Amino acid sequence: MCSLPVPREPLRHVAVTGGTHGNEMSGVCLAQHWLRAPGELQRPSFSAKPVLANPEATAVCRRYMGRDLNRTFTSSFLTARATPDDPYEVTRARELNQLLGPKASGRAFDFILDLHNTTANMGTCLIADSAHNMFAMHLCRHLQLQTPELPCPVFLYQLPGEESYTIDSVAKNGIALELGPQPQGVLRADLFSRMRSLVGAVLDFIELFNQGTDFPAFEMEAYSTVRRVDFPRTEDGDLAGTIHPQLQDRDFEPLQPGAPIFQMFDGKDVQYEGKDTVYPIFINEAAYYEKGIAFIQTEKLTFSVPALPALTPTSTPAP
Amino acid sequence: MCSLPVPREPLRHVAVTGGTHGNEMSGVCLAQHWLRAPGELQRPSFSAKPVLANPEATAVCRRYMGRDLNRTFTSSFLTARATPDDPYEVTRARELNQLLGPKASGRAFDFILDLHNTTANMGTCLIADSAHNMFAMHLCRHLQLQTPELPCPVFLYQLPGEESYTIDSVAKNGIALELGPQPQGVLRADLFSRMRSLVGAVLDFIELFNQGTDFPAFEMEAYSTVRRVDFPRTEDGDLAGTIHPQLQDRDFEPLQPGAPIFQMFDGKDVQYEGKDTVYPIFINEAAYYEKGIAFIQTEKLTFSVPALPALTPTSTPAP
Repeated sequence: MCSLPVPREPLRHVAVTGGTHGNEMSGVCLAQHWLRAPGELQRPSFSAKPVLANPEATAVCRRYMGRDLNRTFTSSFLTARATPDDPYEVTRARELNQLLGPKASGRAFDFILDLHNTTANMGTCLIADSAHNMFAMHLCRHLQLQTPELPCPVFLYQLPGEESYTIDSVAKNGIALELGPQPQGVLRADLFSRMRSLVGAVLDFIELFNQGTDFPAFEMEAYSTVRRVDFPRTEDGDLAGTIHPQLQDRDFEPLQPGAPIFQMFDGKDVQYEGKDTVYPIFINEAAYYEKGIAFIQTEKLTFSVPALPALTPTSTPAP
Repeated sequence: MCSLPVPREPLRHVAVTGGTHGNEMSGVCLAQHWLRAPGELQRPSFSAKPVLANPEATAVCRRYMGRDLNRTFTSSFLTARATPDDPYEVTRARELNQLLGPKASGRAFDFILDLHNTTANMGTCLIADSAHNMFAMHLCRHLQLQTPELPCPVFLYQLPGEESYTIDSVAKNGIALELGPQPQGVLRADLFSRMRSLVGAVLDFIELFNQGTDFPAFEMEAYSTVRRVDFPRTEDGDLAGTIHPQLQDRDFEPLQPGAPIFQMFDGKDVQYEGKDTVYPIFINEAAYYEKGIAFIQTEKLTFSVPALPALTPTSTPAP
């Protein structure tokens, strides 16, 4: 499944973006801190650039001002003619595309690491667009091996045929970190420290690659989107029930046919009526209520990732 | 300490307000549900009125539009001349004061129960303005006795000399329920059910009182505000650290002098330097970052609450 070309040059242009959603505080505060004190993002072969992706939303502690920035990096938004009526995030996406891209161009950054939090019990989730992204799969594997005590499930978010729309898709390579549970607008010290360590481990992996390390083939397990499931609602669109207590906080656990998924306000339960075991994730994520998503049904995949060859000596950096 | 007059007539005009903060979902969804199906709020001697207090903020899932509604029920806001520049919540507070008050008048509602959530680990907290409110103290005691397996600490929020400013202060009597932890914008089934049961128990207490029940004197324990403590910040006002992991989630637990309260982003710890043991609450509440409150220091008080005499037969309702 891994078929995209892998880097054949060292990754020199690396960005760490926080505050892509302005109320996800681990990334907001790390980006703000590193903009003041960037030393932690330096490695021998590169210095990662900290970016506060959505400063206006961060200033008022909202996910976004006009529209979700992390759904705005598609060619239609990035290439359309600017108008005075553009939502703030459309303008900002174009700025970021100039700063870190242009997307799909040779001048684009080599790597973007995007930092997120969720109110769901997602633990330490690594998000890539698809399994075709071999460099990302090796990076995810490296993170999993670095923290064997900490499960780091991999989520492949892209539906077949869907255009990539996230900020990290502007670079040639990238992933997102999704740490939870953490309420919007809250900075928990435990998640802050965990995210900080993970960012360090990502930069260390890139440094290893830049220094000419090769990475062997392996078997990967990942969760891939099957469909998005909305809450039960009244005719007016209000909630008529919520996530069942037996599903709440059970992200990445198997959901069997017949198990309860919603508890209605009138006391009734709603069961999962599918035929196959699925793996719900982003269960009860605050930001997804307005998107009509109570949770995302995923399937668990296992696939082979080929070896990531070492850079040839001519392309490795001078000592 | 309990010195305010107690009701000498049955409480007929009772309101249950949800969505006073539009992203605190237990109260939002209960109010919306009861506006469709109010039967659950009926008792033999009264029917409680469900009110969605801040519908505009609820529609966009924010705490407020222009200013915090639950800080707007002071005489200066309620009595000032209306202007076109008034924030939405000032206008709405005046509407609610007409509907449920006027505050401090004989025509005001007998009781308002206001429903809140917090991102802090407050459990099931009962909030009254002060210990002088004898009816509220008896109600809190009743709720504690109804659910002995569930601690229901009482928080007295008002500082000495401070004017009451909350929506429940519009009525002759009232309390707020504060359930957490729950992220803003998320409806957890467990907290929804717990709040629903508590509302039922409050209405049951009022019904008992209306039917002529007397309630004996008792010793009360409650937490009273000492001071509000801000986060460590940079010169620009950004966070420079956050709640220490050893304090996070420890609401209502004793904090000893010398114990760590903040973890700075540069790795240092900040200790609590007071001389007395205090009891921090609202630790890491999302909505309080902008108010400059990382937690509220309280002291634990114990005081006597006199008996609440039964209504005289002439004032009890006809059977």
